[in-house]
Amino acid sequence: MDIKNALADRVTPLKASAIREIFKLLGKPGIISFAGGIPSPELFPTEIWANLLKEIVDTEGSKVFVYGVTEGYAPLAKIVDGINAENSVGKDFDRTIITTGAQQAIDLLIKSMVNEGEGVICEDPSFIGSLNAIRSYRANLFGVEMDEEGICTDKVEEILKKENIKIIYTIPTFQNPTGITQSIERRKKLLELAEKYDCYILEDNPYGDLRFRGEPVPTIKSMDTNGRVIYVGSFSKTLAPGVRVGWITGHEAIIDRVIVCKQVNDVHTPLINQMLVEQFITRYDYKAHIQKGCELYGHKCALMLECMDKYFPENVSYTRPEGGIFLWCTVPEGIDTQPIFKECIDAGVAFVPGSTCMVDIEAPSNCFRLNYSTMPDDKIEQGIKIIGDVLKKYVK
Amino acid sequence: MDIKNALADRVTPLKASAIREIFKLLGKPGIISFAGGIPSPELFPTEIWANLLKEIVDTEGSKVFVYGVTEGYAPLAKIVDGINAENSVGKDFDRTIITTGAQQAIDLLIKSMVNEGEGVICEDPSFIGSLNAIRSYRANLFGVEMDEEGICTDKVEEILKKENIKIIYTIPTFQNPTGITQSIERRKKLLELAEKYDCYILEDNPYGDLRFRGEPVPTIKSMDTNGRVIYVGSFSKTLAPGVRVGWITGHEAIIDRVIVCKQVNDVHTPLINQMLVEQFITRYDYKAHIQKGCELYGHKCALMLECMDKYFPENVSYTRPEGGIFLWCTVPEGIDTQPIFKECIDAGVAFVPGSTCMVDIEAPSNCFRLNYSTMPDDKIEQGIKIIGDVLKKYVK
Repeated sequence: MDIKNALADRVTPLKASAIREIFKLLGKPGIISFAGGIPSPELFPTEIWANLLKEIVDTEGSKVFVYGVTEGYAPLAKIVDGINAENSVGKDFDRTIITTGAQQAIDLLIKSMVNEGEGVICEDPSFIGSLNAIRSYRANLFGVEMDEEGICTDKVEEILKKENIKIIYTIPTFQNPTGITQSIERRKKLLELAEKYDCYILEDNPYGDLRFRGEPVPTIKSMDTNGRVIYVGSFSKTLAPGVRVGWITGHEAIIDRVIVCKQVNDVHTPLINQMLVEQFITRYDYKAHIQKGCELYGHKCALMLECMDKYFPENVSYTRPEGGIFLWCTVPEGIDTQPIFKECIDAGVAFVPGSTCMVDIEAPSNCFRLNYSTMPDDKIEQGIKIIGDVLKKYVK
Repeated sequence: MDIKNALADRVTPLKASAIREIFKLLGKPGIISFAGGIPSPELFPTEIWANLLKEIVDTEGSKVFVYGVTEGYAPLAKIVDGINAENSVGKDFDRTIITTGAQQAIDLLIKSMVNEGEGVICEDPSFIGSLNAIRSYRANLFGVEMDEEGICTDKVEEILKKENIKIIYTIPTFQNPTGITQSIERRKKLLELAEKYDCYILEDNPYGDLRFRGEPVPTIKSMDTNGRVIYVGSFSKTLAPGVRVGWITGHEAIIDRVIVCKQVNDVHTPLINQMLVEQFITRYDYKAHIQKGCELYGHKCALMLECMDKYFPENVSYTRPEGGIFLWCTVPEGIDTQPIFKECIDAGVAFVPGSTCMVDIEAPSNCFRLNYSTMPDDKIEQGIKIIGDVLKKYVK
């Protein structure tokens, strides 16, 4: 028998996430990893969380371990309402559902909204987890380049004119992988385009609260008057990715279908995880916790950029983010960063080669992503110097 | 704008799980619920779990809250190997992935294996969460009736002859909702049919360890020599549904695709949940814990049947399960149990009307599901008497 016959057409062309594969390499002792995508574990208040977990179960008892409602733990949903309000997210027609991380949010939204063969426009590069989720429902991906103001809306409109587009997927603030923040003009333009061409904007905002310099830019969702924007938030970058708690706020007619898809997906997000987030934010100073993160990442980002200025060849360019946890490097055109990546891994430093973040993952890319949130200062300097040394062999 | 345009065709016809909707009614104080589908919360060792959660975080620190590998926490996978071995599950070509409950296992398997328009054969009635997952990928459901030996394999073959079937979905042991256990002959026959008609068997076995009388019947997976059977297990019924931990064991070529789908679904099952299960089973007597459950459910099932014999009208028939947590009642043909359900809810007793478990959820059903695992003995007697009184009005 040919076991390949067992597989559905939607999954046969999918490639495993290269980032998840790199993640497995990181067990190598002493490796300096700029490949991650997580907040600094040194900020995790693990002692507090350990005590909270025990207290929650001591107080709530068996209720923690029975089934919860699919929509999410009500006290946590209330906290999310408060966080949303600070970003002017949520209108009368909107409703919120708690998800098992923002990744599930994207998956359920694509499943609920996009037919096979319909189009999704995204930034190119973008977050591999979202791109793969979109691919897994056989939607057509249309990547659009960015400049320093974010996605090029002229190019977006060119595609909208020609193709059957259902969703514009964007990470407007401290984008993954580039660190770029979309200007307010571009945000307004995207919303205009969604209205004009009758499609929807999926605003993915896991990093928005992690601003360490510059002025806040309003969320696209804050300008939404018709239900055109579906907003996705997450505690993965402000608290910890391992709690696996995120949310969607969008038009109730859409959330109604997302709920049904979540019922058949994981029934509900585990209560202990939802309760941990709820109790931590209720009883401790969440804003101060985020502020500490912003200060740390601002410092680490500046340090990394300083080291890059010092150790990278002159004709390597890079973004200078105002927040988030990533920056994006570009070597001269025609140079593929995949062999550079392999040589760096051998030299003990990991990052994410650009091709893995592109809509066309087969094409060579002259870019790569660096994460600055997790490594200690001395490792940042040491790692950047090693990458710089390798780069000098490839970039003349 | 018409927000309905936002939705994908695959989700518009889906109905929310009636069981999840009933679940919300159960907040009514004093309600006697036979509608649930969980092990007895009185068996949850919550004090142990509270302490374990704290100890895990105290010992492992921030590692608990970073990303884990999609395949699952390795020490838990090892424990699952052991549980599988006791059911003769797992061949050389098989591989295991930990999932966020068995519900996610079913969802990911349908996504990975079944194209839109392909057929899935299932027992009729079956588990609503699985039926909805199958519907959500636009597969065609073909329900097959059961007798006391389980799914009628002659009828299965009739469908296989005519239709393009990819998967036979079965809960062979203590089936949800009927409590019926498939005979070994039927299991062998199903596997033969899968070979003959080149399709696959999805063996869903969350209740298998909860036998309280009779002789064990081998899993279908134990007879699998070619990778025809994909096996799904769960800790939801042996430990607690709220931990949201299950698993799939199947041919590595299938699991390889399931991993990619899980990457884009929830990245990985939260580590704290996986570690809690792993630590509990490693450090405490899991078998004794299950044995306690079996004794309790055996007692409660016998009590419920005794009460039914006493209070139900004579021409109501019901299954007499050898394990699991459900039994299935049938009133004479032509009587719909939906109005009986409504009257019982008003009288303070909940169960699951049969129509919600059927492939055709619109058709009236003369059946209903009772759960006996969660209510105290006096409530079982009281609740069954109330149902009996209502039944007497409808069943002459």
